[in-house]
Amino acid sequence: MSAPTREFTHLGRPRKLIDGLERITGRSRYAGDVQLPGMLYGRPVLSPYAHAAITSIDATAARAVPGVVAVLTAADLPTSGRIYTSRQTTTLAAGEVRYRGEPVALVLAESEAAATDGAAALLVEYDPLPVVADHSAALAPNAPVIWPQGAPKEADGADLTAAHAATTEGATVQRSGSPSNLHERKCYERGDVEAALRAAEVVIERTYRTPVVHQAYLEPHAAVAHYDALKGTLEIFTSTQGQFGVRDEVARLLGLPRSKVNVTTMTVGGAFGAKYGILEPLAAAASVAVGRPVRVTLTRTEDFLTTTPTPATEFRVRLGATRAGDITALDAAIFLDNGVYPFTLGGIVAMLFGGYYRFEHLRIEINEVLTNKPQSGAYRAPGAPQATFAIESTVDELAYTLGMDPLALRQRNAAGPADLTGEGEPWADMGLAECLEVAASHPLWVNRASECGPGEGVGLAIGGWPCGNTTAAALCRVDTDGTIRIHVGSVDISGTNTGFQLIAAEVLGVPPEQVEIVAGDTRSGPFAGPSGGSQITYAVGGAVAEAARAAKRQLLEMASQLFEASVEDIEIREGNAYVRGLPARAIPVAKLAETAQDKAGGPGPIVGEGRSAPEENAPGFVVHIAKVHVDAETGRVTPLRYVAIQDVGKVINPLLLEGQIHGGSAQGIGYGLYEAMRYDENGELLTATLMDYTMPRASELPPIEAVFVERPSPHGPFGARGVGEPPITAGAAALANAVRAASGARITETPLRDEVVWRAIHAV
Amino acid sequence: MSAPTREFTHLGRPRKLIDGLERITGRSRYAGDVQLPGMLYGRPVLSPYAHAAITSIDATAARAVPGVVAVLTAADLPTSGRIYTSRQTTTLAAGEVRYRGEPVALVLAESEAAATDGAAALLVEYDPLPVVADHSAALAPNAPVIWPQGAPKEADGADLTAAHAATTEGATVQRSGSPSNLHERKCYERGDVEAALRAAEVVIERTYRTPVVHQAYLEPHAAVAHYDALKGTLEIFTSTQGQFGVRDEVARLLGLPRSKVNVTTMTVGGAFGAKYGILEPLAAAASVAVGRPVRVTLTRTEDFLTTTPTPATEFRVRLGATRAGDITALDAAIFLDNGVYPFTLGGIVAMLFGGYYRFEHLRIEINEVLTNKPQSGAYRAPGAPQATFAIESTVDELAYTLGMDPLALRQRNAAGPADLTGEGEPWADMGLAECLEVAASHPLWVNRASECGPGEGVGLAIGGWPCGNTTAAALCRVDTDGTIRIHVGSVDISGTNTGFQLIAAEVLGVPPEQVEIVAGDTRSGPFAGPSGGSQITYAVGGAVAEAARAAKRQLLEMASQLFEASVEDIEIREGNAYVRGLPARAIPVAKLAETAQDKAGGPGPIVGEGRSAPEENAPGFVVHIAKVHVDAETGRVTPLRYVAIQDVGKVINPLLLEGQIHGGSAQGIGYGLYEAMRYDENGELLTATLMDYTMPRASELPPIEAVFVERPSPHGPFGARGVGEPPITAGAAALANAVRAASGARITETPLRDEVVWRAIHAV
Repeated sequence: MSAPTREFTHLGRPRKLIDGLERITGRSRYAGDVQLPGMLYGRPVLSPYAHAAITSIDATAARAVPGVVAVLTAADLPTSGRIYTSRQTTTLAAGEVRYRGEPVALVLAESEAAATDGAAALLVEYDPLPVVADHSAALAPNAPVIWPQGAPKEADGADLTAAHAATTEGATVQRSGSPSNLHERKCYERGDVEAALRAAEVVIERTYRTPVVHQAYLEPHAAVAHYDALKGTLEIFTSTQGQFGVRDEVARLLGLPRSKVNVTTMTVGGAFGAKYGILEPLAAAASVAVGRPVRVTLTRTEDFLTTTPTPATEFRVRLGATRAGDITALDAAIFLDNGVYPFTLGGIVAMLFGGYYRFEHLRIEINEVLTNKPQSGAYRAPGAPQATFAIESTVDELAYTLGMDPLALRQRNAAGPADLTGEGEPWADMGLAECLEVAASHPLWVNRASECGPGEGVGLAIGGWPCGNTTAAALCRVDTDGTIRIHVGSVDISGTNTGFQLIAAEVLGVPPEQVEIVAGDTRSGPFAGPSGGSQITYAVGGAVAEAARAAKRQLLEMASQLFEASVEDIEIREGNAYVRGLPARAIPVAKLAETAQDKAGGPGPIVGEGRSAPEENAPGFVVHIAKVHVDAETGRVTPLRYVAIQDVGKVINPLLLEGQIHGGSAQGIGYGLYEAMRYDENGELLTATLMDYTMPRASELPPIEAVFVERPSPHGPFGARGVGEPPITAGAAALANAVRAASGARITETPLRDEVVWRAIHAV
Repeated sequence: MSAPTREFTHLGRPRKLIDGLERITGRSRYAGDVQLPGMLYGRPVLSPYAHAAITSIDATAARAVPGVVAVLTAADLPTSGRIYTSRQTTTLAAGEVRYRGEPVALVLAESEAAATDGAAALLVEYDPLPVVADHSAALAPNAPVIWPQGAPKEADGADLTAAHAATTEGATVQRSGSPSNLHERKCYERGDVEAALRAAEVVIERTYRTPVVHQAYLEPHAAVAHYDALKGTLEIFTSTQGQFGVRDEVARLLGLPRSKVNVTTMTVGGAFGAKYGILEPLAAAASVAVGRPVRVTLTRTEDFLTTTPTPATEFRVRLGATRAGDITALDAAIFLDNGVYPFTLGGIVAMLFGGYYRFEHLRIEINEVLTNKPQSGAYRAPGAPQATFAIESTVDELAYTLGMDPLALRQRNAAGPADLTGEGEPWADMGLAECLEVAASHPLWVNRASECGPGEGVGLAIGGWPCGNTTAAALCRVDTDGTIRIHVGSVDISGTNTGFQLIAAEVLGVPPEQVEIVAGDTRSGPFAGPSGGSQITYAVGGAVAEAARAAKRQLLEMASQLFEASVEDIEIREGNAYVRGLPARAIPVAKLAETAQDKAGGPGPIVGEGRSAPEENAPGFVVHIAKVHVDAETGRVTPLRYVAIQDVGKVINPLLLEGQIHGGSAQGIGYGLYEAMRYDENGELLTATLMDYTMPRASELPPIEAVFVERPSPHGPFGARGVGEPPITAGAAALANAVRAASGARITETPLRDEVVWRAIHAV
């Protein structure tokens, strides 16, 4: 951790989570803790088949279970007949199930136990249908077509995943005229790739495969909905990253005015892209159907089966370069196994895959494929771990082929601000070069030869993420006791509220203790985009700073009157206003606020609003350096040391920043070494518990060193950039490159399981 | 009801209460409906004596009642030892009780029933002490002194009754050096009263008496408090008129930072001045003491015994005038029976009593007296019914003595803007003359001779109220579906939120249905003064209008960009923006908000703040005309017709305005004809149920005609004035003057009970 900048009073100083004590003492309230009078408990009944016709549902026995109040199927819901498939939304299947775990019915009961018993007593008969279990099977000639009438269309309405939305701008899009499991094929192209590859002195050709990986948050999905027929209002308490998006989507699905739906976000126990709205429409529709509040909390296995993991991918890559180390051309066909509904992550995959380096000639073909799996969804930096693994393994291999220093090769070719991404758009301001420069002098890299014993190796990879820039508003109220209240509508998952506290304290010149963050629901909270796309500190933080500035102007004005001095001569430090150069006379902020508020004919209560709409995003780049040991006899990869260098723009709170980088790096190591959702050929999930789905624990993780690079973003508050997603992007690639260094074997699939590594080493 | 003004689209059109449906269907949630996990129910144990030493408290039997969790006495509370007596705050007596009903202990139990049983089982022994039951007894020579060490001092901290606060500016104040039940004697004086009375051609001399009267709201006091020791936070759910005041007072009493206390106001079932904070400190202290949430809901009898009714008074009046009808001098000694703690309403009594007319020579002596009764408190236009009854009966009698038309006499002498009040300050802009002018041509007045049969008479009285002007802030957010959200921190008791809806709709040019009012708690709501002093529409409404204007500027700016027209050329009507003169092209407000919010580099989400700090108040004056029948054989007074003429400044919502005037007039009729809290010589309350305390029902009320006069206030939104309190001020006087007209008898005490009237008629 580098030393924080000293030009600021509060920014750059470590500060603990505002709600840390609540969290660690178990006092935080989650959606699953919400109890409403008359509330029913919902238990979904899931399909045991990945593809089948539902031939009958007999609820007689289920309804006879004591405490069971209702057994709802698709036809019982007010959402029946509406298209809401392509939005990561779990509802009830009608007529046919298309993935293992698809909910078929919802049993509502007076207790969780009664609901579970009721669900077990429900008799559903199925007629199994042919399954396409992966993208190869889906694209095989004469493969069964999942949606013979065409896949459900995207509906109008707010895009829940706007921060991650793929764009088809700059791409040639082909959509099949006849029914097919290839939902979309698009191609990003510039220059003349074929000619460039023919002219290249070196061509690296590899195929990479990554599996389905789950976000694996600690808290499974949970939502409570309460529809009040008298008022026509729907109250939702949920665990979500984006309450405004959930509100808009639920309102659309239920045909309610948005203004009648209020979403309150409870403490979120991890999300990582999966909590843009999954259970809420089902809970809400059930509440409307029965006229009582309904809570649905998934079990871990239900959560694995029905939610939206990151897609499995295949990258067929050709990379051309000169012997001198100038990369000239990139060609790839990329296949995304999106599961049962379109998710179209391909744009962003192309953007990153073809965006880390300056490629004059580029062609990226994206194949969005439908299969009998749950729909794919966002996963921390969605698509980036896959794209980064493919491009950074290839470039690393190029270095070996050329005999060049892998870092020097990257520095020679790395993209910079205004260079084109894989989609063909110019990058906004970004600090990849700065990260590479820090890496070049990092001891682990510099001394890697002497540092490594037998079977050990050091590898590195770059990674990046564009980060989002949704607009936001915030408010700043100053109470008569000096308490500064910052109102936001964003969801605090990673400590963003604590950052807002520091930003407001810095702007206003008060101690952070004096700042309270009031996070509103969708009815009372100023608009903010979802807590995804690493955008909250960047976008909402800017609004917070503006609101604090607006309030400060009013405080200075009041001080100016009381001091009989001009506004320009007044400063506020540590909660007190002074005339510059006259430190003896101080007026506390509390007194300024009280005077303003109390005075008839005066300015009135201090309140300021701030708005933020950054005109471009602020990409966050990283260089990760991993040291591993590879056991040639077993193929076991053990990470030994890990350095995460990241351009964060400006350090707001080093404590939580380090936490984000540690967490993201750990998740990237999990992605690279351990995690995979395995399906059999019938589409059955083989890893539906945390006993089977391997995640790293502390004992599986190396020491992680976070290194902050500060290239200020032009539009973020004090230059801050998004920081949440970049740390996951480079892990798999860095580890694979370390394995290459340690063992000589180039691994082309994740996770780097023992068997895979052993086979690569022994070429069998 | 006069026709509403047509220059406005929404203002002046009747609009139903936003929450009317909830209220009439029993769906509104009151403080007594709040249930928190682990909540205990509190039952106070009240003193059966008006004055006694507590010799012992034995809780053994009470604690043995199943379900009883704790029996708290003063020493068990964290508030023990703090002074919080003069703030209408009910807590627990220590050592001595000083009024019948003073709470001695609080029994906490798992259910209301167990708490009640526990309270019944508590053994408290008392040693009775001498009682001073009224102000005469209190001021008698050698009367027992209630506070031998001096009455408890006013504490620092926010004034819960700021809107009603008496001022001693302009008065000569005497405070007794030696212990006395006369808490304060002050005298407002100008000119030479004795000389003027000697020189007067006519002197009217009368003594008036009014009893203690209760606010008699439908919902007894109730409060829930939840102290969280981990977070150090206190959450309060209560029925209050002023949540910020309650917060500040509870924080002060419990020694908590204000920022750690949050007050949420539930639906208020009537308040009328009595709900500035009575039960909250007790509930909060109990929650701190036991570490669990505590709810205390008073029964009707407990509410009568322990809350803060309006004081009994005695006015000894001399009024001098010329034969031509010019009033020259007013002299009065006024006695206020304040109960056990100082309340000091005298300033406002003097203000009104000596303020309706231009008195060149004036002396008003105020005697604030302590007695063994519950503390007095605010009561709709506190002090005004008493003061008005006294002055308007006297002036009416002058008219009879002079043989002048009572209305003409009033017009000749009535005060106008800038004339002095009884306190010696100039009136702000006010419309008494306009009200008198309307009365002069009202058919009931004009035709009173021909309208009245045997035993019938018509009387009139003027009344007035200064109204408050606490500052306020408000916010206006425009959502992407066009919903306008107005954030306020005020408590809606009388329909103020519905008025805000109309004000915002008028400013923004949208249908009122599009406007939603978000009333925040003290943590999230912009500051507003208490809903007392008739100030909410006047003060908060101005902030709402300002916030709406701020948001509108942003909408117009956005429209200007989209239309490529200048801002000045754009208007918003019925929720759509147009370029003036081009009605064919419309852009909905929703679209403007969406564009602003969605556009990177754009203005950001639409949000505006508004602040209001009117530099003076906006007094509301009335003339009430009553027609009564007096049964000379029984003394029974039957009101037959009632006309309430009121300067409202500007009609915002005629439906609710008429409701306020109906309700206030009805309460004034109740005050004048029926209501009295009767105490015996031991200080025992004889009227502690609604069977004994007579309130008018619909069958006891005459038809009430509301007549709006609109003299715009210079500072209110669209010229609006306070309207809630003025309608109660004149009732008793108008009825007494009607009785005089019908029977020839001048009644000098309220209520105008059969016996009193019969005795006056028969002079026995």
